[in-house]
Amino acid sequence: MKKDCLIVLSGGMDSVTMLHDYKNRIALAVTFDYGSNHNAREAECAARQCQALGIEHLVILLSFMGQYFKSSLLEGADAVPDADYAEDNMKSTVVPFRNGIMLSVACGLAESRGLQHVMLANHGGDHAIYPDCRPDFIRSMSAAMQFGTYPHIDILAPYTDLTKADIARIGRRIGVDYSLTYSCYRGGERHCGRCATCRERREAMAEAGIDDPTVYEES
Amino acid sequence: MKKDCLIVLSGGMDSVTMLHDYKNRIALAVTFDYGSNHNAREAECAARQCQALGIEHLVILLSFMGQYFKSSLLEGADAVPDADYAEDNMKSTVVPFRNGIMLSVACGLAESRGLQHVMLANHGGDHAIYPDCRPDFIRSMSAAMQFGTYPHIDILAPYTDLTKADIARIGRRIGVDYSLTYSCYRGGERHCGRCATCRERREAMAEAGIDDPTVYEES
Repeated sequence: MKKDCLIVLSGGMDSVTMLHDYKNRIALAVTFDYGSNHNAREAECAARQCQALGIEHLVILLSFMGQYFKSSLLEGADAVPDADYAEDNMKSTVVPFRNGIMLSVACGLAESRGLQHVMLANHGGDHAIYPDCRPDFIRSMSAAMQFGTYPHIDILAPYTDLTKADIARIGRRIGVDYSLTYSCYRGGERHCGRCATCRERREAMAEAGIDDPTVYEES
Repeated sequence: MKKDCLIVLSGGMDSVTMLHDYKNRIALAVTFDYGSNHNAREAECAARQCQALGIEHLVILLSFMGQYFKSSLLEGADAVPDADYAEDNMKSTVVPFRNGIMLSVACGLAESRGLQHVMLANHGGDHAIYPDCRPDFIRSMSAAMQFGTYPHIDILAPYTDLTKADIARIGRRIGVDYSLTYSCYRGGERHCGRCATCRERREAMAEAGIDDPTVYEES
């Protein structure tokens, strides 16, 4: 199979599962460090996963986002709300147009490298809060990339309509080591267990029947 | 009039004309430094134009482009072809998906600042060589931004179907000082007079009946 894909790889459960799921098509994995609390730990997991699979891995620094963008994800662990907060509070974790930015940088890099597709592991669980994870966004962004590049690069987002538990089931089936993934929005040495991504991580693994290897601060 | 626009401002003729043309609607101007030969001189012109108009100006560094992207514009003055080269050669000056990247960063910044529109001074003369200047791209990218942000931020690109000479005529009418703009792809202290942008700059000013204030190395 031709290796003609670049994957946006955070180092969390979803993109790491996709990395293993599509390892035969992926030529390059890119992790973006945009100054969030959890970027450094995510990037370390991403690097180790790629090393294990023999896939080239780059970390690209987007320091302007930490400098100029507004999001609780960029303001330290204490600014991140617990998962049982109201939806309006959860919206504080949105980093404006983050997926648009990561996809467009990935697109330019893919064209520079002669690759044809950019993969993103957005999924159904993110649609409510994150507008740049929804199918309408992905479709329009893919059209913009096709029109805006000579080789008509497009987006592959095969998990768009799956739940996080569906993704965990794929991971279980193909044997992804989730101890080498990181999710917590607070970015501590151990997962906090209370923020939205920690809760989703635990629930997805439980639903998929995975013996969760994560050590949470609060159980 | 409400100041609800962010403009992508290179410091060249087109975006500087747009800055003056829409100064009553522009709250923030952003110049991107992506490591090209001419970025530093462009950015200086952009800063001086904004200072004269009292418009806030930011320079955002996209250093990953110079590091990882493929384009003759990123490889020093000698790599830039003269304007009379064949179209295939001119394509070497394409920076892959540059407008997609600048627009998506501008979009996230606009959402962070409570602004509603992102302005880009793409025009008809760029359509042949630069796919990310064409109407199809602008329309799809604007849709992606509207779907991907809470306030449905969109693109305003009122020069899309104009020629560079049309833009120069607007500039002449409203009194833009073109001595404080920079175009040359080679990035020297003086405009080279031989690259594609130098040629277009001269022709546009001549067609618009402007007494070209630029000092060219080769006349």
